Amino acid sequence: MKRILSMAVLAFAAAPAFAQEAPVYSANITQSEVLAAQQAWGNALVAIGKAYETGGQAAAAELANKVLDDAYGYNLGPVLFKPTLTEAPQTFRITKEGALAYFVGGDEDYPNDSGFALKGWTKVEIKNAAIHINGDVATTMGNVMITNKDGSVTTVDKTWKFKKTDDGKLRIVVHHSSLPYSS
Amino acid sequence: MKRILSMAVLAFAAAPAFAQEAPVYSANITQSEVLAAQQAWGNALVAIGKAYETGGQAAAAELANKVLDDAYGYNLGPVLFKPTLTEAPQTFRITKEGALAYFVGGDEDYPNDSGFALKGWTKVEIKNAAIHINGDVATTMGNVMITNKDGSVTTVDKTWKFKKTDDGKLRIVVHHSSLPYSS
Amino acid sequence: MKRILSMAVLAFAAAPAFAQEAPVYSANITQSEVLAAQQAWGNALVAIGKAYETGGQAAAAELANKVLDDAYGYNLGPVLFKPTLTEAPQTFRITKEGALAYFVGGDEDYPNDSGFALKGWTKVEIKNAAIHINGDVATTMGNVMITNKDGSVTTVDKTWKFKKTDDGKLRIVVHHSSLPYSS
Amino acid sequence: MKRILSMAVLAFAAAPAFAQEAPVYSANITQSEVLAAQQAWGNALVAIGKAYETGGQAAAAELANKVLDDAYGYNLGPVLFKPTLTEAPQTFRITKEGALAYFVGGDEDYPNDSGFALKGWTKVEIKNAAIHINGDVATTMGNVMITNKDGSVTTVDKTWKFKKTDDGKLRIVVHHSSLPYSS
Repeated sequence: MKRILSMAVLAFAAAPAFAQEAPVYSANITQSEVLAAQQAWGNALVAIGKAYETGGQAAAAELANKVLDDAYGYNLGPVLFKPTLTEAPQTFRITKEGALAYFVGGDEDYPNDSGFALKGWTKVEIKNAAIHINGDVATTMGNVMITNKDGSVTTVDKTWKFKKTDDGKLRIVVHHSSLPYSS
Repeated sequence: MKRILSMAVLAFAAAPAFAQEAPVYSANITQSEVLAAQQAWGNALVAIGKAYETGGQAAAAELANKVLDDAYGYNLGPVLFKPTLTEAPQTFRITKEGALAYFVGGDEDYPNDSGFALKGWTKVEIKNAAIHINGDVATTMGNVMITNKDGSVTTVDKTWKFKKTDDGKLRIVVHHSSLPYSS
Repeated sequence: MKRILSMAVLAFAAAPAFAQEAPVYSANITQSEVLAAQQAWGNALVAIGKAYETGGQAAAAELANKVLDDAYGYNLGPVLFKPTLTEAPQTFRITKEGALAYFVGGDEDYPNDSGFALKGWTKVEIKNAAIHINGDVATTMGNVMITNKDGSVTTVDKTWKFKKTDDGKLRIVVHHSSLPYSS
Repeated sequence: MKRILSMAVLAFAAAPAFAQEAPVYSANITQSEVLAAQQAWGNALVAIGKAYETGGQAAAAELANKVLDDAYGYNLGPVLFKPTLTEAPQTFRITKEGALAYFVGGDEDYPNDSGFALKGWTKVEIKNAAIHINGDVATTMGNVMITNKDGSVTTVDKTWKFKKTDDGKLRIVVHHSSLPYSS
């Protein structure tokens, strides 16, 4: 008998319909939001290249600035950003200025930066190895394949951590990108 | 033109199908889990009463003990529990012993407790006013209607905060229950 | 030998000093922030009463409106608010309008509300039974003692859940207040 | 006058002493816990190498297995692990088997793995560029310098995300390590 009672306790009955009509607030990030934010990053990379082609460095910088404001978390604090092609002692770009220099160059404080987003990328494809969702943050890891004008594809290993902020936007707070190791 | 580029950037394109096949870990609590855990609480209350009827106080205490282990967060630390019918200086039952005494009585350290779950409740209905989901915790607030053997219904105002622990279980970490105010 | 190795692995050595100098972003709520936000609620209750005394209902409403904007989470979504003295069918005040009516009255949609904050409270004391901290939210449960002009003290059982928003403010997202049960 | 009232509201007074004595549960991860967990990872890497030297591959594998159980989150689900020296199609090691193969080799399913932890590392130094704390997870990014037997130092760019589980342990749920880019 006790066994039956226990089962009754543990049987999670379907909740009645009216309960589901209560207003719900959720701060949580969802998988589909994460996948969309990844793709938006790819779209932005291509768009900055197009802005450069059409309007030059100034237009590219203006758009990149907007992307950094909208899609990165520099408004919250330091962003843990290790771009694919940076070198010591400027490997990590925890400020917005450092990120902007990486994407569009033209900053004398970052003399090695020629503008990664200005290279005319035409397509970005994302292949996640796994996703870790935890509250309002989610981390993805996998490959990102970016296609050049001539059709050649560069593959990088990439980790992103997105945070959903109060305004409902997903912002990149961690971004580690690296060229694949080759023995 | 810039306007069009911006739109392209912000257009969150549907993510490609393969991305959705990556293994996903999520610590997040969901609304349906919360609704099920609420109903399980109601089922447990009724089940403890039935155990009492069939097996006496010992059987009720055994089942209540199991429910507290499975469905409350006393294993994590203090639980913020204000039962409906407790009085100062024993209003708050932040230890498992205090909660057990409230549900099944029989504890000389809690002389005013006669066993709320032993009163023979036959039905529990939950009507949420709103739900607040935040990571692995969710809080509900609303009315709970519990029906007695003779069919009379008692309504209480109830707040529950559930935490989803590493084992995937939802545990009550906050429980504030009160009789409705009457002017 | 294996035992010694294991101990070496598990010995969490003090981290070197330089590591601590890295810039840190934290979304987490702290206990001291929670205690300060509780006291700020008490201060606000007294201040609204004083505004009423000096400037009448309009001044009280203006200040209460500001308090609700600053210290409650209605900007995020529904707030799970069960004030001490509300009755069905208006027990739960999940909108800002409902909360404002409770505090300062004067809203024909809430005819039973006479303005809880207008009663001339002079002092608010908070005694927590326990606190549950989880990411950017924290819940407190305990007694709140509010003193009237004539020095009489009313004690309520109160649960608050605070959420630290992106701007660093703590906002009340759950508030369940009830008069103590008396057998 | 209104200005003074507002200031009174916003002045976060010091909370009274008794409030601080309430029992507190916190799920949150702290900076010092994160720094200690980083150092523990370094200690473990050195310890596995010593176990290999003293007890051979079996001893190293036994210790590495224990480290993976204690300090990684494979018990929770897939871990987002990109070791420094892995190559496609086995770049990402989201299962414990893949991680173990990387650290100690000897797994025919991972024929390119010779055992990174068996190389006799003698010292691990960690230099964080920034830290992002969010609830029970925290991400660090920076350089890790590992010293070989002959005193030569290898520097890698490393991102770790730790999750504090219910048992109070910090577990690595994301680990992206890469050799520095060189133009």
